[in-house]
Amino acid sequence: MENKVKRIGVLTSGGDAPGMNAAVRAVVRTAVSHGVQCVGIRRGWNGLINSDFVQLNGSSVSHIINKGGTMLYTARSMEFMNPEGRAKALNTCKLLGLDGIVAIGGDGTFRGALALSRQAAEAGSHISVVGIPATIDNDIGCSHYTIGFDTACNTAIECIDKLRDTMQSHERCSVVEVMGRHAGYLALYVGIAVGATAVLIPEREVDFQEDVVEKIRRARLAGSTHYMVVVAEGAGSAFDIGKRIHDEVGIDPRVTVLGHIQRGGSPTARDRETASRMGYEAVLTLMSNRGNRIIATRDGRIVDLDMEEALAMTKQFQMDRYQVLEALTNNGGLML
Amino acid sequence: MENKVKRIGVLTSGGDAPGMNAAVRAVVRTAVSHGVQCVGIRRGWNGLINSDFVQLNGSSVSHIINKGGTMLYTARSMEFMNPEGRAKALNTCKLLGLDGIVAIGGDGTFRGALALSRQAAEAGSHISVVGIPATIDNDIGCSHYTIGFDTACNTAIECIDKLRDTMQSHERCSVVEVMGRHAGYLALYVGIAVGATAVLIPEREVDFQEDVVEKIRRARLAGSTHYMVVVAEGAGSAFDIGKRIHDEVGIDPRVTVLGHIQRGGSPTARDRETASRMGYEAVLTLMSNRGNRIIATRDGRIVDLDMEEALAMTKQFQMDRYQVLEALTNNGGLML
Amino acid sequence: MENKVKRIGVLTSGGDAPGMNAAVRAVVRTAVSHGVQCVGIRRGWNGLINSDFVQLNGSSVSHIINKGGTMLYTARSMEFMNPEGRAKALNTCKLLGLDGIVAIGGDGTFRGALALSRQAAEAGSHISVVGIPATIDNDIGCSHYTIGFDTACNTAIECIDKLRDTMQSHERCSVVEVMGRHAGYLALYVGIAVGATAVLIPEREVDFQEDVVEKIRRARLAGSTHYMVVVAEGAGSAFDIGKRIHDEVGIDPRVTVLGHIQRGGSPTARDRETASRMGYEAVLTLMSNRGNRIIATRDGRIVDLDMEEALAMTKQFQMDRYQVLEALTNNGGLML
Amino acid sequence: MENKVKRIGVLTSGGDAPGMNAAVRAVVRTAVSHGVQCVGIRRGWNGLINSDFVQLNGSSVSHIINKGGTMLYTARSMEFMNPEGRAKALNTCKLLGLDGIVAIGGDGTFRGALALSRQAAEAGSHISVVGIPATIDNDIGCSHYTIGFDTACNTAIECIDKLRDTMQSHERCSVVEVMGRHAGYLALYVGIAVGATAVLIPEREVDFQEDVVEKIRRARLAGSTHYMVVVAEGAGSAFDIGKRIHDEVGIDPRVTVLGHIQRGGSPTARDRETASRMGYEAVLTLMSNRGNRIIATRDGRIVDLDMEEALAMTKQFQMDRYQVLEALTNNGGLML
Repeated sequence: MENKVKRIGVLTSGGDAPGMNAAVRAVVRTAVSHGVQCVGIRRGWNGLINSDFVQLNGSSVSHIINKGGTMLYTARSMEFMNPEGRAKALNTCKLLGLDGIVAIGGDGTFRGALALSRQAAEAGSHISVVGIPATIDNDIGCSHYTIGFDTACNTAIECIDKLRDTMQSHERCSVVEVMGRHAGYLALYVGIAVGATAVLIPEREVDFQEDVVEKIRRARLAGSTHYMVVVAEGAGSAFDIGKRIHDEVGIDPRVTVLGHIQRGGSPTARDRETASRMGYEAVLTLMSNRGNRIIATRDGRIVDLDMEEALAMTKQFQMDRYQVLEALTNNGGLML
Repeated sequence: MENKVKRIGVLTSGGDAPGMNAAVRAVVRTAVSHGVQCVGIRRGWNGLINSDFVQLNGSSVSHIINKGGTMLYTARSMEFMNPEGRAKALNTCKLLGLDGIVAIGGDGTFRGALALSRQAAEAGSHISVVGIPATIDNDIGCSHYTIGFDTACNTAIECIDKLRDTMQSHERCSVVEVMGRHAGYLALYVGIAVGATAVLIPEREVDFQEDVVEKIRRARLAGSTHYMVVVAEGAGSAFDIGKRIHDEVGIDPRVTVLGHIQRGGSPTARDRETASRMGYEAVLTLMSNRGNRIIATRDGRIVDLDMEEALAMTKQFQMDRYQVLEALTNNGGLML
Repeated sequence: MENKVKRIGVLTSGGDAPGMNAAVRAVVRTAVSHGVQCVGIRRGWNGLINSDFVQLNGSSVSHIINKGGTMLYTARSMEFMNPEGRAKALNTCKLLGLDGIVAIGGDGTFRGALALSRQAAEAGSHISVVGIPATIDNDIGCSHYTIGFDTACNTAIECIDKLRDTMQSHERCSVVEVMGRHAGYLALYVGIAVGATAVLIPEREVDFQEDVVEKIRRARLAGSTHYMVVVAEGAGSAFDIGKRIHDEVGIDPRVTVLGHIQRGGSPTARDRETASRMGYEAVLTLMSNRGNRIIATRDGRIVDLDMEEALAMTKQFQMDRYQVLEALTNNGGLML
Repeated sequence: MENKVKRIGVLTSGGDAPGMNAAVRAVVRTAVSHGVQCVGIRRGWNGLINSDFVQLNGSSVSHIINKGGTMLYTARSMEFMNPEGRAKALNTCKLLGLDGIVAIGGDGTFRGALALSRQAAEAGSHISVVGIPATIDNDIGCSHYTIGFDTACNTAIECIDKLRDTMQSHERCSVVEVMGRHAGYLALYVGIAVGATAVLIPEREVDFQEDVVEKIRRARLAGSTHYMVVVAEGAGSAFDIGKRIHDEVGIDPRVTVLGHIQRGGSPTARDRETASRMGYEAVLTLMSNRGNRIIATRDGRIVDLDMEEALAMTKQFQMDRYQVLEALTNNGGLML
């Protein structure tokens, strides 16, 4: 493969996700093993604006594949949202002689990358960008899977398994809020995995009577003495839902908000492996002079998509999982 | 050993704690291996009042040593607090022919046990009681260690280690509330184990300026860019403390309330081992006709104490650990 | 959906895999919630031969979704391999009035299921069978994913992360044998996820000099002082490989055989979720009178395939992952 | 406190143990916060011989409290065992102006420290040494607890809990070898915590018929269908014991050697907390001009002992735990 790419940058931006380090490592090691130099940009796009970077070689990324968080730090950048900020960033790219940038993050990160690349083109220069989807919410339209989702799911189920122990001993109801301001992927996936009595997600309008009260009642009639209600952040406050359960079912639930715990922790095998392959593909994509791409998983495979098209894609929420969840709740055989 | 004890009951009462199952198992297996029958009383003292029990043999307690919660369920009993409730309980003891009861729980559980035993004596009958201290708060005066504390500590540090990952990536401050309404054992132990910037406990009056603001500043001066503040439930609300940090330090902390997660989970080696030995000693104590005792750890050994004396004991909070914590915070060598 | 299916059996057979319980639960709950009765056959096909079974309702499968192993026990059955054994099994099916069987296991399990169904047809009766692929080796031709693989991968990486700590402290080489007698999926996936120096798999002939010796040397030259060699069971004995490393590189490696640890443990979110959906689909498939099917994942979706065709399918080993692995090893930028 | 100590060294030596990093951190931070400079000696005593060291400040030990292994590396040093090697080491001490050394490790480490201190005195110079006991075997005579033991126990029980899942599904016997070449602390503690059928330790002569065969038989008669035999390294090879079980009981056990996995992993709360306090005390001990001491736990407290006396102390093996283990094995009430 003829390769005119000599030096690339890599950054993580937006909310962090377990596996970002594995992606950074893969980008650096793949670049280095193909003779391409690699610069780590720190604190997301801010690092390009403020010349906050570090040169990376193969050893710089040793011992990080199993670490949560991101060694490059991350942040959201307001300044990068306007052309003046991006102009500063382009100056840094020029100074460093970057041919391309691998940007690891979510949709906001990719939109920033695209804006940067276009502004470069308008200014008569060139910078290729490749995005790697990483967010625990799994809410990126173009990719079936995003780095960090699996770790977040496993963190949530480990916490909920612990809650289950004490809820079972005390014969109580537990209401657990998991992350997902706009998307219920995490809540639904976790709900199935912990055998939740009910799951509330933003994608589905909640009929509190049918979706919560009635489900708890059926479980009780079927012999259950404790109940687990999983709520996505975006489907309402766990405290409010706990209060309504108290008022309408007459039991006193315990409420837990898992919060930022879900964003950390050593990444799972799946997140490390996916991040490694995505980082590898990102560099190969840059080297093959295909720029402005997003590395995505589609139908179980890793592909690269045109960034603009990818940003316009939407992912249909897999509502069939909701039916699976309902069928698996213990309801003593009462048809739903 | 001459043994007149033929049949005993075992129950768990009050808040559950990981390791209770291991203690129940040890009581049952030790009894059975000495030819003593064992009855499991369910839902704490309520089970004695309501004749809610189950006969247990060696196999009944198979596969529970590694389970959180309690197979006997637990509850607090209002009815048991008055003589009429206890009279019903004594009737059940008589009906079942119980010579003694092993009560696993906290101070409230033991006070109930003592009241039961005395009421029996007043009524001319006899029931021996032996207590086993189990609470994640470690706040039982007579025992240096209580079952469940170690598991709760490890659950808390695992959660906080995950928080650290994301706090480090985003260079943020984290405020974490751990359990401990009246006692700071968990908070201080955990604070040392995670290398907290500051720990707030009910045993020590908080000078917010000195104990929080100044510590965060010193850590920042020494090069730290993220901070971990651990708050015992009884030392104030994590949300209030977060707000004050926001107002007085000018940073925007993330607040997490670990909550009931800390009460569940597979018990650690220490909790299983301690619970096993305590359960074993409890039965031997009953069999040797020493009744009204509490099995406690003192100076690293398992001993049995007179229940009334034990209930009057207080444990001095190990404030020297607070000095250790302060010395280990990164403050760039600034003397405290 | 018109449903003539009134009663079905469910069994687990062959080597156990984490997530089997979640699949059993899903089969039972889905059946029950559609008014279909469900019988648990114990100890694989032996249970049908020996009339070793238990009736299951929604509550029978409570609290098992998070448990490793299988509540139905599992075994390999020699007797079921010949027509006489299967005739006994068919008698039990007749006695119980089973319309169909969900068989959870690997290729051997499915071949047994197909033989049973055919022998029934020859005898003029009818029994529908549906298979669910569950094996930690991920070596089933028709399905991209098999239940248990993800848990096994995570167990292996957690163990290897621990090994890494001590290997790093002592600057040693570690040789780890993971399961996979005929397939290197686990070894390669784990190898990528732990950042292995070298991975040996049965699908690829080993050039010891190039694939092990040279890789350790390059890592050393690039600054690494410890090395991790992952070996699939089927690619040679870890002890032999350790010895060759000693002889040919002049370092003294530590050898670990992870063994049966990889088959146990609480299933991961992915294994629980996949098992739940597969169990659900299996019952729907039976109820729609499609028999002799295998529920498989293909291209990220759950589908059902004709059992005979599925058994003839082979899965191409994803050798491209081997290239990813090689590119990500620290070699100081030396081209491979 | 008047303090003439200006600069100290810290090292880890011998086999590594989880919590060593927490101890190093505590030594450095305590020193720094008292105005004492701290030098990290790398690779045990070899670092003193070869001038392999690094200056440490408060930030040097950030983010290591939760890491297994040791950031200072560790090794056994042959050269340090003879006077010539120690003379080189003393030269380095002189060059660096070290007033004292904190040596973290086992008995061998402490003997080396004492020899160094004496050789210094003979040469008319002075170096104070303080030892911190760290070994997963818990086999140091003077200290009831050694750093790393708790983590190793928890690692072992987590692995054995996984084995239990698959042994239970397949109704098999498992033989597990845990570390402990000369001491059975780990095996016995773990055996109690996992509810082992039998435990073999070097401190107790094995009567195979009574201690293994008969125990498996009794468990079988009491209804158990799987068995867990835990073997300390020093009590025989797990493979040999597996073979004898095969020959004498007629079942085919699965053998697992946990190996070096037990030496790694993020330290538990107990190991981090103990290491933190021991490191703190070690520096205070040096600063108070008490040299040649070992920091130990006795009766649940941290104390400092004269090094020579401490090295002569022996710890009585707590054989009473063996009786607990026997009483708790499921034997259907058969007296032992």
